[in-house]
Parts: sequence; C-alpha cells; structure tokens
Amino acid sequence: MMSLGSKVMALLPLVAATAIASPVLAQTDPLPSWAESTSKAAIVDFVARVTGEGSPDLVPEAERIAVFDNDGTLWAEQPNYVQLAFALDRIRALAPEHPEWASTEPYASVLKGDDAAALAGGEKALMQIIADSHSGMTTEEFAKVVHDWITTTPNPVTGRLNTQMIYQPMLELLDYLRANGFETYIVSGGGVEFIRVFADATYGVPPENTVGTVGKLKYDVIDGQPVLLKEPGIAFVDDGPGKPVAISTHIGRRPIAAFGNSDGDLQMLEYTCLQQTPRLCAFVHHTDAEREWAYDRDSHIGKLNKGLDAAATFNWTLIDMAQDWTTVFPQ
Amino acid sequence: MMSLGSKVMALLPLVAATAIASPVLAQTDPLPSWAESTSKAAIVDFVARVTGEGSPDLVPEAERIAVFDNDGTLWAEQPNYVQLAFALDRIRALAPEHPEWASTEPYASVLKGDDAAALAGGEKALMQIIADSHSGMTTEEFAKVVHDWITTTPNPVTGRLNTQMIYQPMLELLDYLRANGFETYIVSGGGVEFIRVFADATYGVPPENTVGTVGKLKYDVIDGQPVLLKEPGIAFVDDGPGKPVAISTHIGRRPIAAFGNSDGDLQMLEYTCLQQTPRLCAFVHHTDAEREWAYDRDSHIGKLNKGLDAAATFNWTLIDMAQDWTTVFPQ
Repeated sequence: MMSLGSKVMALLPLVAATAIASPVLAQTDPLPSWAESTSKAAIVDFVARVTGEGSPDLVPEAERIAVFDNDGTLWAEQPNYVQLAFALDRIRALAPEHPEWASTEPYASVLKGDDAAALAGGEKALMQIIADSHSGMTTEEFAKVVHDWITTTPNPVTGRLNTQMIYQPMLELLDYLRANGFETYIVSGGGVEFIRVFADATYGVPPENTVGTVGKLKYDVIDGQPVLLKEPGIAFVDDGPGKPVAISTHIGRRPIAAFGNSDGDLQMLEYTCLQQTPRLCAFVHHTDAEREWAYDRDSHIGKLNKGLDAAATFNWTLIDMAQDWTTVFPQ
Repeated sequence: MMSLGSKVMALLPLVAATAIASPVLAQTDPLPSWAESTSKAAIVDFVARVTGEGSPDLVPEAERIAVFDNDGTLWAEQPNYVQLAFALDRIRALAPEHPEWASTEPYASVLKGDDAAALAGGEKALMQIIADSHSGMTTEEFAKVVHDWITTTPNPVTGRLNTQMIYQPMLELLDYLRANGFETYIVSGGGVEFIRVFADATYGVPPENTVGTVGKLKYDVIDGQPVLLKEPGIAFVDDGPGKPVAISTHIGRRPIAAFGNSDGDLQMLEYTCLQQTPRLCAFVHHTDAEREWAYDRDSHIGKLNKGLDAAATFNWTLIDMAQDWTTVFPQ
C-alpha cells in the first residue's frame, strides 16, 4: 500500500501536465532566454501596462516607440568596437594605393598591426582613420565594402562573426515588443550606413528605423547615375546628448522604452524616462566574464559609470547579464 | 417605328448601366479628382507595374517608398510660403518683449506690416527672422505655438486656413499609394518641426515619415524635465541637393516614386528616376490661375525652370493642374 506521501508524489507528474495544458501556462514564453528575474518581470509588466485593453496606462500603437543602442546593447563591443576593427582593416586594405602611409602615423602603426600605437594619437588619429576608411566612394560602394567585410571577418577573441555575437535575449525582446505593436529603432553612436548593412537581416530593424552617426554626403550625377559620395568628416554625432536630438529629428516622437549599456546612452534614457507616465528604461550590465565580458565603471569601451548611479537614483532596470540571461549568444 | 440609330441611342443608357455594374468598372475610382489624363494613366500604370502579382517589375512592399515635397506639391505656397507667414506673425507677437525692434531692421518693417521691405534685406534678414521666430523655447512649446497659429490664421488671399488649401488630388494619391503598400514620406525644404504639427492629421503622414530642414537643438534637463531647446541656426537644409542626402540619411532606401513642383525638387527626382528600373517622377505644374495660381519659370516662389527642361528630357510626368485636376481643394 502506498503512503499518502507516495501517492502525492505519484500524482505530481499529472498535476504538472495539467498545469502545462492550462490555457495561461500553455502560452509560449516570448522571452525564453531570460531567467525569471526582476528584469524580465519589469519588461513583461511594462508591456502589459501599455498594451492591455482597458489598462489606464494604455499607449496607442503609433506612440509605442522603443529605442535601442547597438554596441554593447544588441551585440558585443569587445575587445573593440566592430566599426573600429572595420576601419583599421580598411586602412590595411587601402595601403597599396597609399605608399606614403608606410612612413606616416597613424597609418604606419596600423600597417604594422599595432592598433594600440595607432590609436595612441587620440581623437585626431582616430578621425583620420575613420575619414580615410569611410570616404572616397559612393554610399552603395561603401555598403558593399562593409557587407564583404562583416560577412567574412571574425571577432578576434571568439573567432565568430560579429553578426553572430548578438544577444539572443535582446533579439527576443525586439520580437516581443514588435509583436505588441511597438516600433523598434536602433539609435547608435555607430555610423548609420555601417549599421544598416546588417541591421535588417540581423535584428529585423529596417533602414528607416536605424539612426546613427552621420558622415558627410555629397550628391552628384556621374555618368548619368545619381549618387551620394561619402566625403571625409562627420555631419552629426549620435552619442550622449546627441541621441535625444537624433530621436527628435528622425522619429519626432518621444520613446516610451529605451535600452542602452553605457554612459553614452544616459541622455537617451533620461529623455525617455524622466517623466511620470509609464516608461521603461534599462541598461544591459556586462557582468559575465565567462560567457561575454565583465566591465562597467572603469572600462575604456562602453563605460557605465554615471549611468549606474542614474539607474539607482531613478529606479531604472539593470539587466544583469550573468544572472538574467540563460543564453547570451544564439546557438 | 424607330430608326436603327434611334434604337442604338435608346439602348445607350442601358449599355452604360451594364458597364458600370461589371465587376471591373464597379471598383471605386481611387483618384476621383483626377481627370482621365496622361498624368493619371502614368500613375495608375506605374502602380500596377510595381504591385501586380506576377508583374516582372514587382517591387517588394518594404521598398515601395514614395517621397513628396510639401510647399506647392501638397499644399499651396502662394502668395508666400506658409512658414514665412508664420515667422513674420511670430515676430509681431514677440515684439512687446523686444522694444528695440521698433527701430531695428528687419524687425521695424515687419512691425509696420511691410513684409516686402523686411525681406528686402535678403538672406541675412530672412535668417534673422527665422532665428528669432523659431528659437528660444523647447520643441514642445514650439509645436504648441505653431498649432495655435495654423489652426487660426487664414491664407491672406483666400481667407481659408492653409490646412484647407491642400490639394485634394494629392490626398487621393497619398491614400492610393498607401493602399498599394507604399510608405509615403514628406521631404520638404520647410522645417521638420513646423510640418509635423499638421502633417499627420492633414496628410496622414506621421512624424517619423516627415523629413525637412532641421534647426539646431540642444538637450538639457530643466527642473527635472528632459527637453530639447530650439537654438538659433540651421543644422541641415533639406532643399535641392540636400533632398537626396536627407532621403539617404533618414530613410536609407532609394525611393521609387517622387513628386515635387519646383527646381528645389529636381535632385530628388533625379535621384529617384535616373535609373532604368520602373520609377515614377512627376512635377505638379501650376497652370491654374483661376482655381489656384499659375507660375513656373519666372516665379519668385516655387520656380520651375530647370525642372521643366528635365521633365522634357527624361519624360517625367507633368501634372497640369488646370487640365488634370477636376477638383483642386477639398470642399
């Protein structure tokens, strides 16, 4: 004869099966790579509040704007920004046309493979590298160069393509928001023409929803073909206080949700969330030295210092990569 | 006894009624304010080519981008640009706070109501008027000022609100394109923050699809509220060769249809149509001195000179307002 305890134990699988078959629990989890955490609860609760029929905080679909930083928020930014790796490789690819670079800094160091020495020249050196690697061709030629590079060049640490070093939980979040009537935008300090080459296929974010730093363009008709020539120089820097400016100029609506990972996103989160109506702001906090990288207040890339303080002050969500994500990169 | 001719005549209304009841002809005409003209045929044929199932020229929905100039293309621009009328009225409204304006040009002439004398100072005078009338407040305050003005200030010639002096045939065209999977954008030399105040309600073009000239903005947090302050100065001029640049930066796709009315739209039409794949480019030609205004090569506003030549060279569509539109303004 079974004890009561044994009977209960024997029944448990049945209870579990019943629970799984119930209408509510049978729904597929839209965020399967997120652990059951305060981060996940904050996201799900917010979406329910702004989309629920009869909710006092219901937001019309046209106003459901969510903005995402890219580097460190949607994909990895270590050991260095992907676009900087592209620029350095591009200098090396162009070197045969510029024999004078062999004896001129910052190019000479780049050609020796000593990127650190090249970048020791500070902003001036960086701007030279960006200008020479990002200009002198049409926007369509540039897109092809980026495409060829990004589909073949691995991350130097992991050996995986950078477009595979995107965050699976953030892909799920993008999909989840779109399924709930949100329009999702990238608002990145990276170059808009660089990001657009892969953003649609990688994140499902189309060109018109990709906002970024803008290089100078010049319109011309060459051999009967209308083209936009990429010229040296930057027309607009989409970083820090530039992010709210770009959001206003490009989208023309104030977002109701914003996701970043560094102090360069602080003003975007302020602009979105320093309001009393329901808003969601979150930083991806890089806490996972095993599966990704761990860095915040003192990092030379993706520094999150003032942002950590602001998150504490304003009760914004901190997404703890090590704790909150069961998966980091897509399999 | 009726003659054969009489019999045929007697049957005609029946034939007509039968034709109207046939499945194809019973479809509601999506462009009822357009006369049966080469313009209308060009539009309808183009849409059929790029949207028809099995058409060799089928364009995926995501790439069906149509761009529209605003002044003179979607609404009237006579006797002067609406935004300039706003700026002059705004100077008069601000005058009590600026007693020094009574004796300083171009303000003194504006305050006397002599707009022509004020504008005789050329671009410098114009820039002063724009700067003083469009800065010194947040973007949200500016939107309210524009809203209050545009909902109350009539066109000086017709006495109608400017938002009623929009072109009914172009409203039908916007709807027709959207019903066929197009995304419609305004790409205007006017200020983006001015146009967005009325574009959604007036044209069904939402803020994120409105591209225009951009004034300088500065992000700040004032009394705990994150705001964008409108500063004097212009960050980007969306006119002439600026239009393809703005289209590339903002939309990131090359349009397949473009509509303008002046030489300021010429590069936008070139950028769209100097390709071999199916494209539609059209100028609204102001030929109707009775119902609207008649002007082209020699006009001080909306000059269409090089554009007329280009339309002839490249076989672009000229929309003859007097001939092609049965209605100009909504009733």
